[in-house]
Amino acid sequence: MKYKAYRKEDLYSYIFGAFPVIELIEAKPELIIEVIISNKYNEIENLVTILESKGINYNIDDKTINRIANKGNIFVVGVFKKVDQTIGDDNHIVLHSPSNMGNLGTIIRTMVGFGLHDLAIIGNSCDIYNPMVTRASMGAFFKVRIEFFNNIHEYLEKFKDRKIHPFMLSLKNPLKLVDVNPEGKFSLVFGNEGSGLPDFFEDIGEPIFIPQTDEVDSLNLTMAAGIAMFWFMKEKIG
Amino acid sequence: MKYKAYRKEDLYSYIFGAFPVIELIEAKPELIIEVIISNKYNEIENLVTILESKGINYNIDDKTINRIANKGNIFVVGVFKKVDQTIGDDNHIVLHSPSNMGNLGTIIRTMVGFGLHDLAIIGNSCDIYNPMVTRASMGAFFKVRIEFFNNIHEYLEKFKDRKIHPFMLSLKNPLKLVDVNPEGKFSLVFGNEGSGLPDFFEDIGEPIFIPQTDEVDSLNLTMAAGIAMFWFMKEKIG
Repeated sequence: MKYKAYRKEDLYSYIFGAFPVIELIEAKPELIIEVIISNKYNEIENLVTILESKGINYNIDDKTINRIANKGNIFVVGVFKKVDQTIGDDNHIVLHSPSNMGNLGTIIRTMVGFGLHDLAIIGNSCDIYNPMVTRASMGAFFKVRIEFFNNIHEYLEKFKDRKIHPFMLSLKNPLKLVDVNPEGKFSLVFGNEGSGLPDFFEDIGEPIFIPQTDEVDSLNLTMAAGIAMFWFMKEKIG
Repeated sequence: MKYKAYRKEDLYSYIFGAFPVIELIEAKPELIIEVIISNKYNEIENLVTILESKGINYNIDDKTINRIANKGNIFVVGVFKKVDQTIGDDNHIVLHSPSNMGNLGTIIRTMVGFGLHDLAIIGNSCDIYNPMVTRASMGAFFKVRIEFFNNIHEYLEKFKDRKIHPFMLSLKNPLKLVDVNPEGKFSLVFGNEGSGLPDFFEDIGEPIFIPQTDEVDSLNLTMAAGIAMFWFMKEKIG
């Protein structure tokens, strides 16, 4: 198989870096097509031992690495299959039309850091399999389930018995995050980086506002999502 | 003056985008050398009215914009002077050897969002004036003061009468963030993206741990800093 730079239409994707590849090997070995290692990687032997013990294909092949990851400084690449996923009925993070791949990866890393493993994506989304996402997630990508929904109503139809909390800036009667006492099963819903959530989300569930000064336009999406996750999970972890 | 792509040794830097330039005009007009506007910008007239009312130099000049910001999609560039700054004796964010410019900008944006305006940088740092920093800050860069210190001792010597809280992962007797009742003046101290804080910070002030699962190596720096700022400022804002 002659791998090239990632394209959205490929049935497989890549994750870059030794540490994230180890995360992939531990979390989802069944998805791995092969692991490609650079001759310049300074722990080839250790990695090969792990791969052979798990029966995972590998190649030591600098040319292929250069073709896939042309930015350099990448010594290990994991090639993995894209598979359709569905989320469970636990607590959810819900992202409406996320467009920035780095943000999406960081949100996934933070989810796993706070013990959340189910991500619903509503409407249009950036390509979740792009190596920029898997990379920013530092491999946490393989510890979450991701399911797509055409619109929020389709999602609400499937998951009824829970608290829905859209995070919004311009609420008439804002419920402040610091006044929320997290109880029961929840879905935390966040809008697009540029445009936020459409206005009609005000009428869905119990919208929440994160107190902030008016010296900034808003917190960035990743930060808002991380602070909300921390608040809802702070009694449950650590 | 023939402006080129930003270089660290220049005595001026750039901020890209109409919204961040407006923030610069409002917060620090005295730093502006000039504002460069693209012919393709669709609100030239409004912007020129503001600039003229404030007596700020401007040029409508696509060639210069292309030279400075070669990635395209930039319609307004602010050129501003670099000046030495000192921080006040209010609450501080302290970053030890920050290396990622996007992270630094996002931390600055979050600081301002939570009402914090003084940033101490310890040791080596990425270039704080790089347009990647000012851009990620969305212009909040001009609402903070930033001061450099060679090492943490130099900082501690200057700012004595306050609580120092290094944020660390591997503490023997970790004080959890959720158990902290913020009181009085504080400095929240964060390490480098890759290496964290050196071990000896354990013996400085009152180190804090942000509860997180062991399914991730750590939260990312920006996220940890944002959550900490939120926790310390949550009763004071909104």
